[in-house]
Amino acid sequence: MEKKNDHGIDKVLVIGAGTLGVQIANLLSMHGIEVTLNDINKKALQVANEKIQSDKVNYSEQLSADAYDLVIESIVERLDMKQELFRRLEQLLGPDVIFVTNSSFLLPSKINKKISNKNRFCSYHFYWPDEGANIVDIMPTKKTDCEIVRRLQSFSQDVGLEPIVINRENHGYVYNYIFSAMNTKAITLVIKGISNVEDIDKSVRINLGCNYGPFQMMDMVGLDTVLHITRNQAKRNPKAWFGVWFINKYVKMGKLGIKSGEGFYKYE
Amino acid sequence: MEKKNDHGIDKVLVIGAGTLGVQIANLLSMHGIEVTLNDINKKALQVANEKIQSDKVNYSEQLSADAYDLVIESIVERLDMKQELFRRLEQLLGPDVIFVTNSSFLLPSKINKKISNKNRFCSYHFYWPDEGANIVDIMPTKKTDCEIVRRLQSFSQDVGLEPIVINRENHGYVYNYIFSAMNTKAITLVIKGISNVEDIDKSVRINLGCNYGPFQMMDMVGLDTVLHITRNQAKRNPKAWFGVWFINKYVKMGKLGIKSGEGFYKYE
Repeated sequence: MEKKNDHGIDKVLVIGAGTLGVQIANLLSMHGIEVTLNDINKKALQVANEKIQSDKVNYSEQLSADAYDLVIESIVERLDMKQELFRRLEQLLGPDVIFVTNSSFLLPSKINKKISNKNRFCSYHFYWPDEGANIVDIMPTKKTDCEIVRRLQSFSQDVGLEPIVINRENHGYVYNYIFSAMNTKAITLVIKGISNVEDIDKSVRINLGCNYGPFQMMDMVGLDTVLHITRNQAKRNPKAWFGVWFINKYVKMGKLGIKSGEGFYKYE
Repeated sequence: MEKKNDHGIDKVLVIGAGTLGVQIANLLSMHGIEVTLNDINKKALQVANEKIQSDKVNYSEQLSADAYDLVIESIVERLDMKQELFRRLEQLLGPDVIFVTNSSFLLPSKINKKISNKNRFCSYHFYWPDEGANIVDIMPTKKTDCEIVRRLQSFSQDVGLEPIVINRENHGYVYNYIFSAMNTKAITLVIKGISNVEDIDKSVRINLGCNYGPFQMMDMVGLDTVLHITRNQAKRNPKAWFGVWFINKYVKMGKLGIKSGEGFYKYE
């Protein structure tokens, strides 16, 4: 296939058919990219197949060698699993492929530990493209080639994403770094009995002129995911343990946000 | 004049013809409230007169006894001046008037120190009603009567405001408490060289689906005001000193945001 663009990314392997993996596969395919969605779980692929609008996505349960230009990893947030996956991928696919991780909080310089071509690796972090949050964070390590960043920037624009290139590694990229602080403060107001979920959301919504307040946003992300992120955050910022405790109360009751029908709010 | 409403607030004295004082006087007058705008500075009153759309606002340079139902203080953020003002007002107007402060960060239990009828005093904090941010925070002290809170709630709704009643005193109410944390994080990203003003604003704007990012918001508030607030915040949270240093660079250059034509951004 002739490369028509300046980034040379036409064939993409997305690994992990979770919420974001599916959204990523869908988005890229809608923009004419040849996408293979891989997951070790057959059922996850079946569910993905129902959600994905394009009929051009390939589904695979096993990793196999192919002429991929880019591999996007979007599996569970476990460092050891991600490191091992990239080691295998490098052996399988050779040194020319661009490897990126969609990890929300693990630094790319940790995830790249077991690969040799660290110059072709960086973070490439999505929000909720299906919800119109079309920002994508490109976060290189010290070893990432500038050329790789440039190609990912160009690729992003081609598939309707707004790339934000981050100069240096940072836990939480740009938006999540700010969003986490917002959530911690919002939760603190509730725990201290100063305000409540509804009033806090209303204050933020009206003053910022946006559609969702912090608790509504957390319900959208999923409280199990927020718990996971907050727990990780708490390792660096002890104040976030209040957040862990608070969110865990909901998760233990099975209140995971929109996807379970109830979180901070009830959903029909 | 017969009281037609359940809050009994028909005649209001607004003290301080700064940006917010003027917006408050304008808003109340547009909703049929009899408003007197007071300022010791004659020029400030002239400027206010040009901005205010209603021709029913009275202007006064001197405090005098009248049958006010509510006094809204919106003078400079100096504790001693506010305390002294309320002491004088209580002598002048008697014990039946509701006294409220629009202070952004001084606690009402500090401001009420020199008055006797602490049960009729609380914070009543506006954002930018002229910009559509029609939230108003009602923050009582431990001594404020519930009835006063209820009347202010009802009054707020009558003049098109969305009242947020805060259970306990808190520096920064609800929104400013969260907004300050957001600003501190946004500034940290710039100082550390992780990202830049434009990218941070873009990330927040797109992900939250709102019109303005944190730096645009600070430009709207005015960087001198943000500096003042951040300095106060730094007394409780040493990390905010980075923010003070950062914002002060702009203020020293006369870059105060939209009102001076330049802040983090340039304006025509």
